[in-house]
Amino acid sequence: MTEQEKRILTIIEEMTLDEKVAQLVQLAPPFFEGAANEGQITGPMAAIKVNKEVVRNSGSVLGTSGAREVIHIQRTHLKNNRLGIPLLFMADVIHGYRTIFPVPLAIGCSWDLELAEKSAEIAAKEAAISGVHVTFAPMVDLVRDPRWGRVVESTGEDPYLNSQFARAFVRGFQGENLQNDFDRVAACVKHFAAYGAPEGGRDYNTVNMSERQLRESYLPAYKAAIDEGCEMVMTSFNTVDGIPATGNRWLMRDLLRDEWNFDGVLISDWGAVKEMIPHGVAEDEREAAYKAIQAGVDIEMMSACYIHHLKELVESGWVDETLIDEAVFRILRLKQKLGLFEHPYRGADEKREKEIILCEEHRQAARELATKSCVLLKNEGVLPLNRDKKIALIGPFAQSGDILGPWSCLGSKDEAIPLYDGFKMKVDPSLLLVAKGCDIETTTEKQWQEALDIAREADVIVLALGEHSDMSGEAGCRADIRLPRVQLELISELKQFNKSLIAVLFNGRPLDLHGVVDQVDAVLEAWYPGTEGGAAIADLLFGDANPSGKLTMSFPYSVGQIPVYYNCFNTGRPKDAPDAQERYVSQYLDIPNEPLFPFGFGLSYTTFSYSEVVLSSDYMTPDQPLSISVNVTNTGKVAGEEVVQLYVRDIAGEVVRPVKELKGFQKVFLQPGETKKVTFTLTEEQLRYYHSDLQFTSDAGTFVAYIGPNSRDVMALTFKLVK
Amino acid sequence: MTEQEKRILTIIEEMTLDEKVAQLVQLAPPFFEGAANEGQITGPMAAIKVNKEVVRNSGSVLGTSGAREVIHIQRTHLKNNRLGIPLLFMADVIHGYRTIFPVPLAIGCSWDLELAEKSAEIAAKEAAISGVHVTFAPMVDLVRDPRWGRVVESTGEDPYLNSQFARAFVRGFQGENLQNDFDRVAACVKHFAAYGAPEGGRDYNTVNMSERQLRESYLPAYKAAIDEGCEMVMTSFNTVDGIPATGNRWLMRDLLRDEWNFDGVLISDWGAVKEMIPHGVAEDEREAAYKAIQAGVDIEMMSACYIHHLKELVESGWVDETLIDEAVFRILRLKQKLGLFEHPYRGADEKREKEIILCEEHRQAARELATKSCVLLKNEGVLPLNRDKKIALIGPFAQSGDILGPWSCLGSKDEAIPLYDGFKMKVDPSLLLVAKGCDIETTTEKQWQEALDIAREADVIVLALGEHSDMSGEAGCRADIRLPRVQLELISELKQFNKSLIAVLFNGRPLDLHGVVDQVDAVLEAWYPGTEGGAAIADLLFGDANPSGKLTMSFPYSVGQIPVYYNCFNTGRPKDAPDAQERYVSQYLDIPNEPLFPFGFGLSYTTFSYSEVVLSSDYMTPDQPLSISVNVTNTGKVAGEEVVQLYVRDIAGEVVRPVKELKGFQKVFLQPGETKKVTFTLTEEQLRYYHSDLQFTSDAGTFVAYIGPNSRDVMALTFKLVK
Repeated sequence: MTEQEKRILTIIEEMTLDEKVAQLVQLAPPFFEGAANEGQITGPMAAIKVNKEVVRNSGSVLGTSGAREVIHIQRTHLKNNRLGIPLLFMADVIHGYRTIFPVPLAIGCSWDLELAEKSAEIAAKEAAISGVHVTFAPMVDLVRDPRWGRVVESTGEDPYLNSQFARAFVRGFQGENLQNDFDRVAACVKHFAAYGAPEGGRDYNTVNMSERQLRESYLPAYKAAIDEGCEMVMTSFNTVDGIPATGNRWLMRDLLRDEWNFDGVLISDWGAVKEMIPHGVAEDEREAAYKAIQAGVDIEMMSACYIHHLKELVESGWVDETLIDEAVFRILRLKQKLGLFEHPYRGADEKREKEIILCEEHRQAARELATKSCVLLKNEGVLPLNRDKKIALIGPFAQSGDILGPWSCLGSKDEAIPLYDGFKMKVDPSLLLVAKGCDIETTTEKQWQEALDIAREADVIVLALGEHSDMSGEAGCRADIRLPRVQLELISELKQFNKSLIAVLFNGRPLDLHGVVDQVDAVLEAWYPGTEGGAAIADLLFGDANPSGKLTMSFPYSVGQIPVYYNCFNTGRPKDAPDAQERYVSQYLDIPNEPLFPFGFGLSYTTFSYSEVVLSSDYMTPDQPLSISVNVTNTGKVAGEEVVQLYVRDIAGEVVRPVKELKGFQKVFLQPGETKKVTFTLTEEQLRYYHSDLQFTSDAGTFVAYIGPNSRDVMALTFKLVK
Repeated sequence: MTEQEKRILTIIEEMTLDEKVAQLVQLAPPFFEGAANEGQITGPMAAIKVNKEVVRNSGSVLGTSGAREVIHIQRTHLKNNRLGIPLLFMADVIHGYRTIFPVPLAIGCSWDLELAEKSAEIAAKEAAISGVHVTFAPMVDLVRDPRWGRVVESTGEDPYLNSQFARAFVRGFQGENLQNDFDRVAACVKHFAAYGAPEGGRDYNTVNMSERQLRESYLPAYKAAIDEGCEMVMTSFNTVDGIPATGNRWLMRDLLRDEWNFDGVLISDWGAVKEMIPHGVAEDEREAAYKAIQAGVDIEMMSACYIHHLKELVESGWVDETLIDEAVFRILRLKQKLGLFEHPYRGADEKREKEIILCEEHRQAARELATKSCVLLKNEGVLPLNRDKKIALIGPFAQSGDILGPWSCLGSKDEAIPLYDGFKMKVDPSLLLVAKGCDIETTTEKQWQEALDIAREADVIVLALGEHSDMSGEAGCRADIRLPRVQLELISELKQFNKSLIAVLFNGRPLDLHGVVDQVDAVLEAWYPGTEGGAAIADLLFGDANPSGKLTMSFPYSVGQIPVYYNCFNTGRPKDAPDAQERYVSQYLDIPNEPLFPFGFGLSYTTFSYSEVVLSSDYMTPDQPLSISVNVTNTGKVAGEEVVQLYVRDIAGEVVRPVKELKGFQKVFLQPGETKKVTFTLTEEQLRYYHSDLQFTSDAGTFVAYIGPNSRDVMALTFKLVK
């Protein structure tokens, strides 16, 4: 035990049981003396009955920031708190604080770990200066169901890729040393565990899977974040095999604490302790408190089961006080790690807020990442745009700054660059016409007519379409994942002019793009690109940047195909087998098995050819890895960046193995005509998987390595693992 | 060990290893000498290379019948087989042999266990007389995804109801004593296990769930069939937690044999042993054979891994010969139980075939069950039909005998009664007009015009719409579960006449009925009603019978809502909570959480009122069951039958519990004005469930009992379990 830890124990010894329990509660600013909105306890908060004494002893504050406000609440708190224990300020800084980066699903499509890390670093810096100590990020839930609104917060459907991004985000938020580097914040990986698999894609809904699948697909990214030193973990709202995560002892004690050795702070999601009552595993708040503390939840966010019942549970012998002490210890140690005992205001600095937040450097980083996050899905020779042609920019997102996406923290649409403004940076205003055509779900005769008028006048039509940001994000679930009908009608209507049609899409999930892809000449998936969105998209559309993003979540053919993901299993009757029958194979009668756009897919303004795929050997051993190399050549006319992808398939396992699993990727930048050799190393360790007995080992036997520009268009080489 | 079993051991002692292994193979008739199609080994069968000696020693024949053919093959076989071991003849007699009953999903909607049993008894009789010894039924897979075509073969989404039907079918097929009662056949419950949960509703696709959920929801119906004495079990095509069922030792040895004490014959599904290769758990046929025999599969259906490799596996010491002996023992014992050693032709009787098959008594039973299986989903006062009005009967199913559904064995559409023929039994031909309007997926101008012409002339329009039977059943999976578009257009077109519109639906799955229910005045879900379909539906439409069917599978609001089922969990943020927020609850933004029609729902031509719901006590103990009674009154003008349903909810469990679970149901027939008291007994045993440690126990605490006419419209009473 370190000296610092001993000091914490000394503090805990001085604390009364009431003070300890209060340390475990997290409340919103209205509860706190000195907060700007002090006392405005309305809505669901009103159900949280706590007295002034509890607030004065409480451990952390949820969802406020701003140096002035934080300093004020902290100062008041330190005056009122008997032992002078500072508050922790936590907030949802998800994809930027005020300089907003693309949504995480878009960042995933960049396949750019460095820029992802940089985005988290910038978000941390802006947040830390504004007084935030902990961010509730990264969200690393594996996702396969685009109906679920929170896919927008994930980097996609692959456990390996999600793990790489999890690590990058944690590094970016936390840096090397939180105690000295006040420009960083502690990260909190969420939502533990498997929140990304809600049944029917309906938020908060039941999750069920075998422990083996949980370990194989869903857990790796959380584990990666923890291995990277992530200071906190947040419980998920869902059940894990019938027990809500927040009260799940197996998940939180046996797995997270004992097996993974996580000794940081475990916090519930908003109200999740109390939600064990509607879940139906607790009859009342007392039982909910009991189950959460037994499971090892340190901080109860926004419900008061701990406050109301933990003391009595300890006094009546139901709960051992050491459980409380351990929780308090972990919370105080995090405060210490953040330097709060010495510097209770930490990085909060009104002067730096003005200088640094939304500074040009941050905007540039956001623009760069947005450029790399967009995915070109189709281009029939109409992009990049010709600057001499007259452009009609039409659609609800043409002039909208509402392109930040869900969880955009202090981001403001007024500070964002709409697409129209981006276009104005590129072309003469006389060549640029703009009209809305429709709102996201409705239109007026006037709007419609204006769109037709400018379309008639223009040489090329750029449509800026999409979902309102409330249509994804938390509780933003849709059973129909097409564009709103009025926008599809707008496309059909504009089709009559027989002009080049280009669709730029702003949305938070893979969509069913029928009625779009088949109608237009080019589609750029821009997701919610953040503050610099319009500038970044204009860079791409006008060819000042070359699209390089690749999908990290499959775009389904239709909602009836969900779930569809590349790393699925072959089944006993695969449709693509050489001897497959016409009917009795695993298929739908009415649609293909393949998604509309597969994982890893994305076009460029140039073309790349893959050649000379070579294995260093036709077998590997545990001591002798393989290397796999390929020559990638830019065969087009402009420079461009390619994401070279390596997949592996285990031909016969003890349990069935995915038809492909991503094992590596490299981004290469190539001038026209340039060739680079890309080399991957593959080790026996990368071939391990969870067997039916949950042992994580590899099997000797035949494997196939695939290399290609996406998960579909690959070249295959066979090798053996010899053990 | 019985004397008979000892005799079997004596036979086995005489058998060579080759003879034993051959006993384990099941081949189709073309392989057999004397078969009508001998030697026509084409298609996938061609991959099965076996010599004449193997066929002469083989144990069973797949999918043939007819007394003459069976006797002929058996006679030839007994001449050729060294030890005179008779063949077993197995066939898919699913919902009737030649007299076709409604599809199983429809039978489920009858909630009539006696008639279900009767239907199996009749099917058995017709099949047995035709030489069949074993039927591959009942299929008892729990189903929640109407995209999957095989939902048509299941009785629905409830484990309790499916278990009751499983028992009824087994009783009906097998009777009391197979050895003496040659009018019965052995039953084979399938598909073990959890085949009904394929991902994406795509046949043969991956199944994954926790063992707890498997035990709680999916296994009970198989177990019920086995407890009822079912002689055989069929493995399923899918994986169970990563291991194909057919090679799943845990599932087949530990659970089925050791825990459940099943000692009957275990057969693979068609080709499923070899399919372990594409599944990716076997590198070749040899490994597939090894895994299947280790798992305890006795008969390999339609692949030849055993034939090609078991002998070598035994001789090389990989497989213990006792495993082969055990499998042979089980197969020979089944032959003995069926009386085949003494009566190798058993019930096969050409004379009785002519007398009994499709006899009037059987037709009447089929008509009665069809009448009880239809579900009236909507009726705005237009049904029953007035016999004095002129009726236009329109649609692809108006005059079609293709209403038998998938797996209709020897049923012939030419022997089925089309709806038009049923109508002719009820009304004067001058009042009956008929036109097709369209085929199932297409139309012609002439068809369309004819429909409009008769619609114009008529007083009321009856539409006979639906899916082709190939659109459900094995490999009959659809991503879009609406009626084919042309039929929806037909409805819209006919709507213009402002006449009463009645839709009768022929289909094999719950459909998304938007565009139907909202357009017409009445909807009768007729499923595939079988041989007597047209007569039964006419009985209902003209009021000679009163609809009493109730859905046993929820009809989703749309395909984007799948899966939706009544016995789901509450979640931590239920939408219907009194204090629910507007946004942050478990819901879709664009559709309701509720299905279009819930489990247990169905209308009648009369109305029923429920009153005086009384619990015998407000608590129960393990020794003291509760009784729950309700007075049900026929408050309408015609006699009718009501399915009174009892559900229970456990308010707080160790794991989350369904919002409702069916615990009992009773059918009551009531004259107008009549009241009957319906009483259910509820025991502690019925409140048990699988805890996280897989113990099957109950918890003391609060429960709610619900009584009502369906799973939605219920009255609630609270009680406590005291232990």
